[in-house]
Order: sequence, then structure tokens, then C-alpha cells
Amino acid sequence: MRSENPLMNQVLDAYKPLWSLKHAISLMSWDFETYMPRQGTEDRGVADSQLQMLHKDLLLDKDFVSLVESAKNLENLGDTEKGVVRVLDREIVRQIKIPKELTEAESLARIRGNMAWREARSKSDFKMFEPYLENMVEIKKQIAAKKGYEKHPYDALLDVFEEQLTVADMDRVFGTLTPRIQQILKKLRDSNSPFCQESNLTTIKYDIEKVDKLNQDILKLLQYDMKRFRLDISTHPFTETMGLNDVRITTRYEGSDFKRSIFSTIHEGGHALYNLQCDQSLSHTPIEGGTSLGLHESQSRFWENIVGRSIQFVHLIAPLIRDYVDHTKQATDEDLFFYFNNVKADYIRVDADEVTYNLHIAIRYEIEKKIFGNELRVREIPDYWNDRMEDLLGIRPTTDSQGVLQDTHWSSGLFGYFPTYTLGNLVSAIIASKMHKDLSEYEQDIQKGNFDPIRNWLRLNIHQYGSTYAPKDLLAKNFGECYNPDYFITYIENKYCV
Amino acid sequence: MRSENPLMNQVLDAYKPLWSLKHAISLMSWDFETYMPRQGTEDRGVADSQLQMLHKDLLLDKDFVSLVESAKNLENLGDTEKGVVRVLDREIVRQIKIPKELTEAESLARIRGNMAWREARSKSDFKMFEPYLENMVEIKKQIAAKKGYEKHPYDALLDVFEEQLTVADMDRVFGTLTPRIQQILKKLRDSNSPFCQESNLTTIKYDIEKVDKLNQDILKLLQYDMKRFRLDISTHPFTETMGLNDVRITTRYEGSDFKRSIFSTIHEGGHALYNLQCDQSLSHTPIEGGTSLGLHESQSRFWENIVGRSIQFVHLIAPLIRDYVDHTKQATDEDLFFYFNNVKADYIRVDADEVTYNLHIAIRYEIEKKIFGNELRVREIPDYWNDRMEDLLGIRPTTDSQGVLQDTHWSSGLFGYFPTYTLGNLVSAIIASKMHKDLSEYEQDIQKGNFDPIRNWLRLNIHQYGSTYAPKDLLAKNFGECYNPDYFITYIENKYCV
Repeated sequence: MRSENPLMNQVLDAYKPLWSLKHAISLMSWDFETYMPRQGTEDRGVADSQLQMLHKDLLLDKDFVSLVESAKNLENLGDTEKGVVRVLDREIVRQIKIPKELTEAESLARIRGNMAWREARSKSDFKMFEPYLENMVEIKKQIAAKKGYEKHPYDALLDVFEEQLTVADMDRVFGTLTPRIQQILKKLRDSNSPFCQESNLTTIKYDIEKVDKLNQDILKLLQYDMKRFRLDISTHPFTETMGLNDVRITTRYEGSDFKRSIFSTIHEGGHALYNLQCDQSLSHTPIEGGTSLGLHESQSRFWENIVGRSIQFVHLIAPLIRDYVDHTKQATDEDLFFYFNNVKADYIRVDADEVTYNLHIAIRYEIEKKIFGNELRVREIPDYWNDRMEDLLGIRPTTDSQGVLQDTHWSSGLFGYFPTYTLGNLVSAIIASKMHKDLSEYEQDIQKGNFDPIRNWLRLNIHQYGSTYAPKDLLAKNFGECYNPDYFITYIENKYCV
Repeated sequence: MRSENPLMNQVLDAYKPLWSLKHAISLMSWDFETYMPRQGTEDRGVADSQLQMLHKDLLLDKDFVSLVESAKNLENLGDTEKGVVRVLDREIVRQIKIPKELTEAESLARIRGNMAWREARSKSDFKMFEPYLENMVEIKKQIAAKKGYEKHPYDALLDVFEEQLTVADMDRVFGTLTPRIQQILKKLRDSNSPFCQESNLTTIKYDIEKVDKLNQDILKLLQYDMKRFRLDISTHPFTETMGLNDVRITTRYEGSDFKRSIFSTIHEGGHALYNLQCDQSLSHTPIEGGTSLGLHESQSRFWENIVGRSIQFVHLIAPLIRDYVDHTKQATDEDLFFYFNNVKADYIRVDADEVTYNLHIAIRYEIEKKIFGNELRVREIPDYWNDRMEDLLGIRPTTDSQGVLQDTHWSSGLFGYFPTYTLGNLVSAIIASKMHKDLSEYEQDIQKGNFDPIRNWLRLNIHQYGSTYAPKDLLAKNFGECYNPDYFITYIENKYCV
């Protein structure tokens, strides 16, 4: 990207070393989870923290900060240029407001907290984790205060993961979403819906090499270009972006319940496509790649759930599944469809179906809001959690590992992260609805494996912009919407309640 | 590593970001050759050059340079501390003396030269490459002048790859080595030695997956710890070190002539072991890992040639070979031994056996010396090359790609690099001779697969020190030798002329 404004070009040039450090840090992270020899952990830890510090030093370097300050005062900037300034300013402000001691304290609390959480989870004992969580919450409260907010301290944390997101937004979302999903869930259970019947495909064992080939074939069907992309294996699937022409995903192979592997692949592929289809002119700039966690999750969930779990997609990939997965020869397309879309109130968020998933997030959101609003104390979390599980899902965890200790996020200080999962679900449904209007053959295209129209639509309406626009601005500009839950509710009703 | 001297500790702390950048650059290089999606090349190029520049900026940062300057004046430093200061001072001096314009010109000449060389080699036309080589030589002459030297301009370039190495050293080496090797080669040919007879194992095709398992098994026999080490595949085998507990090698699979694959593996494994057995206290310091290219090559050649191509090692791995390589069931241990040690005057250096190999280096050394001594012009190189091939090996290349265009080194400005290959061969023989005195059962141990004594001996005498001592100092201190060619000549005579 070059600008007509020399100052902007100075900013872009000065950003190159920062981009390069991020490139290296991303590669180190990918390697850590995939190929790094086990005992390389300590070396990698040293390198990672040193490069993070170098990145921060360059970002907060006086000359760079004053360049960005000057750029903020420029007039007649185009949208991408404004985007560059917005993203850099946001990153600088976020880091400059937090005193070094607080950053270091958080870093230490993260390492210790994560270790304590692992131990506590394995023993299913929240009390072991409690003091570490207390400490982390205290640090995060101080960070929120330093960062500043208009209405609610939690706003300061929400904004880190989703620009401009507030408690007011999320209250509005869950105010509608939670009761409606509860109604739908009740209806499905009361009617003894086929979606609620356990599938016998869940327990069949599979051959990992064959399901790996299945995943590769699905990615080929979805038209991923292996010259710019790759698939590897890790315990927890993730997407890592080294640049707009080097985006990598991983998937998992657990040996049974093969849908977990293929939907991880499709999910991460959705994240990857967001970056792969960003306009190439944004390469090596601060606005390269997706604009927020919520928007990113909308892409992964669109492909995983709305495309991937549709009956049309099942028709498309069923022959491959019968080829590659032992004991599925006799399964009909409908068997596969109900296996993929089984609805069940479960304790564990990551295993939840698309109907119940957001109820898990609602509970986490409520807890985070109350903690940072000083309405709930850390030691009260487990009971609150279990009570709300009973209210919303009708089941009560009997152990801490089944409840409050299941997620890693809080141990690493990631407060404000969970809501972006729900935003992703909501936005995926907004997208599907808008896409449906533009692409009348959308469902037939999926069944035929003709993904060009869908990919192009996503590129034009979302991907190409990278982070040019803040998520709310992009949603308003291109869809005339915000995080409106109605589309998602309609989508769920249409799919599950007919 | 911590010092009793606070200033030394400041130096070591300030080095951490430099170490971390090297860590990242090494990983990026490993990834480039192994797993990176093809179109990631441009992104990787940007990141690599930016991190190299950051590294240079940190190295030449005023505060860091003056820290190192102060450390040079410290008294009562221990050997490792002196090593740290020596290595840093050397790196700073090398970079500080070369003006930025010259570094940039070299960088540009390298990229253009390498592209031109590829094109010229594919067309076998030196004339296409000549102007680029002229340009590179001109730049290198300026660099040599800036760097400074005592006697010969080429000394300035030799020292880059092998500390303190001079034309005087190499003249002494080849003055003895070249005629003696010529005599041996003549003797082998005249006597119609079994070493000179082509083996029919050369042409058999192999199953890549099986030979990969063979390589893994050989590495297991050699006791490599896969928690700190890994083997991957690349076109040109290499070793990359991310840290003392993360060292990775690659090998190649061409589908026939399986010795090329297994000896690449053993060769790179030798490089890796040098770093894996460095004292852990040197982690993240400037003296982590091997002290010079020549010493590094002595380790790879020791394992590849002196251990790997010995009859004892053949006895050890022959059963594995017969298991994994099709059509070798009937091959005797002696068949394999002669296949591994076939001696043949060939045009291509990388295919040369251990008898003729150094003659290839002698020619390159002579040319480099004459070029930088202004005794030979670039356009005269091809004829000089071919004449000397005829003199030393008795064969005359008929095309440029068979001759002067075969190696990539000059196109990338690597003048002074070739001699370190010969130094590696010479030092490997010095090591074997000294080891033999200390470990009387050395050969039986190889045959039994008992590598502990050999690995320990190498660790104690060489590996543990990392780069604490300059190569000449290490050779003098532990072996009372320099780059003495007599050991190598004796080794070759004993192996081939009995």
C-alpha cells in the first residue's frame, strides 16, 4: 500500500519492522503447537517474550508515536489510510496507558494462573485456583481503570477484543437471545425432536490417516489454494496468519466422533479465508486481515455451521465420508445431518451445538460483568455458575472441572473474550440472510460444490477490507445492522423447529 | 550463564533480544525450506530482511557497543566470559567497518546474482552470469578493503567464515594435500582398486517412506533425542539451530542412490550434535553452538565419513538397509561398503567421494585467491577451472554447468566459504586420530552401536565449549594441532590403499 501523502508512507514504512516481528511471533506460535521438539519450550519462551518487548518498544518509540499523532491530523485521507491510523492509534493508546509494572504483573499472573488452573482443573478443585483468579481480577480491574471507560469498567475489557463493544450492546443481545433460545430448546425437547436424539455415529472409531485425507478433500472442495495455505495437526485447532499469502490452520484427530475433526477443519478454514481474501494491497500494513474477533468468528461459524452443517453440504460430502470413515457405509445423508446437528444440553461449552452454545456464553458474560461491576466476588463464581447452568440449560455441574474450571480464558486474563463467540454466531446469521438475498442459488450452489459465488460475496462484502473499518462500522456500512440477534434466532427456528 | 562481574551480566542481558531475533530468523529459514506454502515467499523475504536490519541496529546500538567496549577492558575474566566478549566484538567490528551503502549493494547483488546464476546454469552459459559475478567481486573487494587485512585481501574474506584463517594457512594445507591426494588417486586407478569399481547399488530405486524410516532408525541408533531434535525433508539438506534444545536437520529423498539420503542424514546429524552437546549454561549467549564453519564441518564429516562410511558402521546398519531398501537383500556388507566408498573423478563437487573431494575445493580456493589478489579476471575463470580440473582430476568439463556454474556460493557472494569444507575434512581426521588414542575400543564400539564413549569424547573435547575458543585456539589447546593435513592423508591411505 502506498499513499499520496508522504507522511502516511513514512508511517507505513516505519510499520514494516513491527509487521515483521508479528510475522515471526506468529510463526513461532504455529511451530510451538505443531512441530517444535518438546524441550524447545524454554528457548521459545525466551524468544517470544523478547520479541514481544521489542514490538512494544518499536510501537511506543517516540518518533513512531509522533508520526502516528501527525497522521491523525491529516485531512483528506482515504478509508484505508484512516483505517491504518485508527488501528495504530488504538494499539498505541492501549499500551501507553498501562504502566509497565501492571503489564509485567499481568504477564506473571498469566503464567502462574495458567499453571494453577491446569492443576486445579485436573483435581477439579476451584479453591486451588481461587487466589490466582482473585489476583488476576484485581490486576484486570486496575488495567480497566487505567484504560478508562465511559459507563462500565467491563467496557474497557470488552473493547480490547471487539472494538467499541460495550455492556449496553451485550445486555441488548442477551436480553433478546437468552429467553428466545430457552424457548426453542424447550420446544425441541418437548416435541422429542429428531435433533435431540443421540446418533450412533458419535462413538464409532476412525482411522486418523483416512480422516486426514477426508479433511484435505473437503478443503479442496472448498477451493483452498494450497500454495497459500496449509493444514496441520494440533491438540487445540487454531488459525495462524504469517501474511496474506501464508495462512495456516490445524485440526485435531481424537480417533472417534469424526464430526469434531471435520468441523474444526471447516471452522478454522473460515478464519483463514477472511485473511486469504483480504485485498493484497493491504499486505504488511496494520490493517492486513480481519477487523475483530467477533467478525473473525462470524466467518468461521458461517462456514462451520451455516454452510458445513446444512443438509446441502451433507449431500455434497456424504460420499467422501462413506469412503473415508469406516462403518459409515450404511449411513444415509439424513443420519449424517442429524449426527452433525444433534442438540443437547451439555456441561462443556466447546462441545455445545449451535442451539445451546450461546447460553454457555451468556453465563460467562454475566459473571464477567458482575465481577468487574463489583456485584460478584471471585469465591462466589462456582455457585453462580452452577445456578445459572440449571436456570438456562436445566443441568447442574457436579464438579468444578465440569463447570467453572472448564475454560482456560480466565486463567490467562482473557476477560471480555467470551462475548465475541456469540457475536460471531449472530453476525454469521446476518451474513447468511444478506447473502441469501444477493445469491438466489446459494443453497443449490453449496450442494453442487460451487463455492465461487459465496467466496466472492464474502470477499466483496467483508474480506477485502481487512481491518479498514471497525467492526460496527463495517456492519453498519455494508449490512445496515449491528449485532442484531434476530437473524440468528430466525435461522435457528427455521433450521430446527420446522 | 551468569557472571560474577555485573558489567558482563549487563552484556548478557542486552544480548537476549539479539539472540531472540536470531532464533526467529533461524526458524523462518527452517520453515522456508520445509513447510512454508510456496506463495509465502514474498512475505518471508520482507520479514527476514526487516529482522536482519533490526538485529544489526541492536548490535550497533551505541549503548550496546560501549558496553562491549567496556567489557573488553575487564580483567580477570574467565574463558567463557572472554569468549562472549571476543565473539561480540568480532561481530560488531565486522559490521561497523562496512558502510551501509556497501551492505545494501551486496544485498542487492546477492539477490540479482543468484537469479542470474540460476538462469545461466539452466542454460549452461557463463557469459550470462559474468557481469553479475564481476559486480559481486568488485563489491567484495571493497568490503575486504574496508574490513582490512595484514597480508592478502582474501584473508579478510576467509576470516568471515573461519576466524583467523589466512591465505598462508590454506597455501600450507593445499601445498601438502593436493599432490599427496593426486598420488593416492593415481595409485588407486593404476591398481584397479575395488574402490574404483562402480556399484550396481547406485541405480536401484527406493521407496521414500521406507528410507525415511531407515533414516529415523539410524538416528535412533546414533542416540539422537527426539525431544530436542527433528528430521524433516528439503531439497538441499541443512541443519538449523533454534537453541541448544531445539536443533533440526533435513535430508533429501531422490528415489534412487539411497546412500545420498542416509549420508546426508548422518552428516547433518553431526552438525546438530555439536550444538546439542554444547554446555547448557551457554544457552542464549553469543557463544552458544559451534565455533566456526570449519569446526562444524569437522563434526558432520566425522560422523558421515569416518564413522558412517567405516566397515564397522556398515556391519551395524546393513541389516536395517536390507529391511528397508528394496533389492538389497542379496547385498553383502562388503558390497555396501564399496558402494558407500566408491572413488571416482567426477565433475560435481557435491557428488565427490572423500578422496577426490578436496581437489574440488583446491580449485575453488586457487580461483578465489587469484581473483582477490588481482591475478585472475572474472572472465578467465571458466578456462582456469577447466584446466585445473584436467590437471588435478584428469577430466575436463565440457559445459559451464558441469564446471564453473555448478555451485551457488559465488552468486551469493560467499567467497572464502569453500576452504572451510576442506578444513572440516582435515580436522575430522585429527579428531579421529586423537579419539583413537583415548578410546581403544572405538571401532568395536561403532560396530556394537555403542556410541556413548564417542559422543562423550566429542562433548568433552569440542562440543561443550560452544564458541568459547576461536577454532585455532581450540585445536591448539585440546589437540596441540592446527589445520594439519597429515592426519587426513594418513587416514585416506590407511582406508583406501591397503
